[in-house]
Amino acid sequence: MQSPDSAVPDGTNRSLELAISADGTPEPDRVYTIDARCGIAVRLRKGQVLRVINPSGHQVCDFWAFCAENLGEHLSMAHVHTSLGSIFPKVGDALVTNLRKPLLEIIEDTSPGVHDTIVACCDHARYRELGCEGYHDNCADNLRMAMSVIGLRAPRVPAPFNIWMNVPIAPDGGTRFAPPVSRPGDVIRMRTLSDAIAVMSACPQDMTEVNGDGVAPGILQFVVEDA
Amino acid sequence: MQSPDSAVPDGTNRSLELAISADGTPEPDRVYTIDARCGIAVRLRKGQVLRVINPSGHQVCDFWAFCAENLGEHLSMAHVHTSLGSIFPKVGDALVTNLRKPLLEIIEDTSPGVHDTIVACCDHARYRELGCEGYHDNCADNLRMAMSVIGLRAPRVPAPFNIWMNVPIAPDGGTRFAPPVSRPGDVIRMRTLSDAIAVMSACPQDMTEVNGDGVAPGILQFVVEDA
Repeated sequence: MQSPDSAVPDGTNRSLELAISADGTPEPDRVYTIDARCGIAVRLRKGQVLRVINPSGHQVCDFWAFCAENLGEHLSMAHVHTSLGSIFPKVGDALVTNLRKPLLEIIEDTSPGVHDTIVACCDHARYRELGCEGYHDNCADNLRMAMSVIGLRAPRVPAPFNIWMNVPIAPDGGTRFAPPVSRPGDVIRMRTLSDAIAVMSACPQDMTEVNGDGVAPGILQFVVEDA
Repeated sequence: MQSPDSAVPDGTNRSLELAISADGTPEPDRVYTIDARCGIAVRLRKGQVLRVINPSGHQVCDFWAFCAENLGEHLSMAHVHTSLGSIFPKVGDALVTNLRKPLLEIIEDTSPGVHDTIVACCDHARYRELGCEGYHDNCADNLRMAMSVIGLRAPRVPAPFNIWMNVPIAPDGGTRFAPPVSRPGDVIRMRTLSDAIAVMSACPQDMTEVNGDGVAPGILQFVVEDA
């Protein structure tokens, strides 16, 4: 098990082969595919729009965004909660950093709007807890790998914006992992408010129902639209 | 505004004068007072019990704990949510780190058990947003100062365990800052499961009702009980 801030993954997968370019700069309007269980980082300029697509409808996207000029500043869900007065970001909402700076604005969400902003991404320790003895693909390592293949070092693994992830909170505070309520082809579009590095992981969780009941983790797609 | 990971506070207060000893080691069973609006760090050995006391009943304690041997490993509320299946830690629950290691176990809670685990601590940027033009005491800086005066550097400002803080979540996901439901003299006791540095901040928030309606932020007290 790595130190929590290590940029070295606990294990590796095909994320190491998926860099979209040497520094993560995308070709506008091209549809990129994130292989099942893998992660990709993309460099976004202010004004560009990131479109994330859920082809199967049941695949969760663990999502992070770091300020391009200082990777220590990044989206922070704990700050988003105060900023929005809600745990569910919706169209028109800006997602803020750990310095409370608006970094991305949600401009379209075709899903019912059920996303998670309270649980950590899956990691090596999580699969150990769940009884997995060997290496299991995980979102923390996907983040580390996706950053490293475009020449960057994730300074840590922030709590993610878990797009399409369904973690209902009961009146007594109880939480559970439920299948997504999103639908095939659902799309979320976010406008970049300040230059950023976004990272998307097609969550490999197959030991809970969080990526759908009885289905294998699937692919995701994304497109960067120029301003 | 500092870089988010800076150990240098955006301003200072009496937290710089409140170190309980050179390295934060406490005198067992002594009652220490945390001045209103200030923070203190304390070194805890495995087996020791930390008792935090809320004399007024309406004062929130922003709380952090770092592993003594690696400050990069610390309590993480996003990991706690998965571990507990709840946003409300209660008696018998262990609070885990960003490596999912149990660090503290709640062994007593005389309050109704309403604590917050989803919002960031207050910081310089937060008071700017609320319209404060000069420096305002804040929990992020209290953490930085409390660590520095015992010779340590907080590697970042993790999302805190906000003891007695009342942030109700509505069925639609909406959150708000409400006065605490704790009562004068309420106590929470936590057993140390692995050597740790705990930091407590008597939250100086006086621009919302989070430390009570129409009352000034107050003191907190704590005691370390030997195993």
